[in-house]
Amino acid sequence: MAELDAPLDKVMKPKPVTVNAFDDQEVVAKKIGKYNLLAVPVLEADGSVVGFVTVDDVIDVLIEEGTEDFLRMAAVEPGALDKPYMETALPLMIRKRAGWLVILFLGEMLTATAMGFFEKEIEKAVVLALFVPLIHFVRGNSGSQASTLVIRALALGEVTLRDWWRVMRREVLSGLGLGLILGTIGFLRITAWSAFSTIYGVHWLLVALTVGIALIGIVLWGTLAGSMLPFLLRRLGFDPATSSALFVATLVDVTGLLIYFSVAVLFLRGTLL
Amino acid sequence: MAELDAPLDKVMKPKPVTVNAFDDQEVVAKKIGKYNLLAVPVLEADGSVVGFVTVDDVIDVLIEEGTEDFLRMAAVEPGALDKPYMETALPLMIRKRAGWLVILFLGEMLTATAMGFFEKEIEKAVVLALFVPLIHFVRGNSGSQASTLVIRALALGEVTLRDWWRVMRREVLSGLGLGLILGTIGFLRITAWSAFSTIYGVHWLLVALTVGIALIGIVLWGTLAGSMLPFLLRRLGFDPATSSALFVATLVDVTGLLIYFSVAVLFLRGTLL
Repeated sequence: MAELDAPLDKVMKPKPVTVNAFDDQEVVAKKIGKYNLLAVPVLEADGSVVGFVTVDDVIDVLIEEGTEDFLRMAAVEPGALDKPYMETALPLMIRKRAGWLVILFLGEMLTATAMGFFEKEIEKAVVLALFVPLIHFVRGNSGSQASTLVIRALALGEVTLRDWWRVMRREVLSGLGLGLILGTIGFLRITAWSAFSTIYGVHWLLVALTVGIALIGIVLWGTLAGSMLPFLLRRLGFDPATSSALFVATLVDVTGLLIYFSVAVLFLRGTLL
Repeated sequence: MAELDAPLDKVMKPKPVTVNAFDDQEVVAKKIGKYNLLAVPVLEADGSVVGFVTVDDVIDVLIEEGTEDFLRMAAVEPGALDKPYMETALPLMIRKRAGWLVILFLGEMLTATAMGFFEKEIEKAVVLALFVPLIHFVRGNSGSQASTLVIRALALGEVTLRDWWRVMRREVLSGLGLGLILGTIGFLRITAWSAFSTIYGVHWLLVALTVGIALIGIVLWGTLAGSMLPFLLRRLGFDPATSSALFVATLVDVTGLLIYFSVAVLFLRGTLL
């Protein structure tokens, strides 16, 4: 009888939805959302019920988590600012904001060191320095775009850690596509400007080519690094949606500058350099 | 009798919580969350009930909105990517990511124009160029930190549009505090480095002073612009948590560079310049 009962039992009685006392808040929120429940029993490891989580607890958690993730991505540690904005004492506010800002600042200082390696090149071709903010900006924005898409896909369970290879292939192609678009615009802009102005010198075509090619490389590198970073952080046990991602980004900034100046040395040696 | 009834009626029978058919999703979510309701009736303008919003609808909206805001802050238009990451066709993915990236890129190109005004200064003092990425980075991060805090405070109802003046006073003081911290670190770093290296030349102390003072000004400016921008966008009817905020940020980048080079001209005229 027991043998006959078993499969029927499985079909007829769905396994009740429960959560464990050690479950993460987000896991609980997702379960309640998925099954459209109003409450779930919370079980201890031995299966005994220790309480209930209701749907309005979940709403509170979602609102809190959502705004906390925002803060983390902007280098503010959320735990520090429990009180409303206006009620946080100013010295505390400054101290808590300074924390990550100082850490990121120390990392970003390496860009000055990296630029130092190319001081001679800048001296010979000052025009190269003019595009440094643009290069810097493109690295940062293409990277944060890729990071955000991947972090979201991981959070929604659309991709798992094992998909890193497939994501990488997609992002290499996306990076190349985006790089070609921005590189072309950069090239055309310098070319067009040179028709009215001498700001880019007699070698303006070479300058336009250098900036255009460097933009392709930098968008590709920003996109690739931005998309793989969440996988790496997750693999090492960190939450990818934290300020630690910003810190690694500052290191990617340094390599972005190296790419730009290396392309410049390659294209301008013998003419401007 | 009617006169006596009225106040008693107000005390005893609380006004039922309802929402209007034209209410924003977020308004409905907040109301349900605030009163811990399981469902609210939806009223037409004439007061007739047209339906109900249940608590699990609200959870779905919150999860969706939370991830959408993330995308917007990273310059991806969320409506475009309804499908999961892996299922979005690559050409569509590139086109949707290129949209805002190109707009921001066009704005950021103004930095090359701004740098062009100081080509002569950079030629005379190449050392100035070395700190451009750092200056750029500090402007961006202090700005996004302030923006995020203010957007969150506005979203949670901790401050209203009319508080802009009080927020500005707080952010000027925060910006000065943060600027002093980063400016001091920048000054000390250049000073310390000059003990071992000649990279900053014989006028290293003046260079350290220039970068230090410029950092104070730029953090203050970034913080001020970053905190006031959400008020301005909200006042003009835009959602501050969108890519349009990023676009204005690129314009603030240009002014950041102008501050840096203006401080440099002020401090280095007669020596390096």
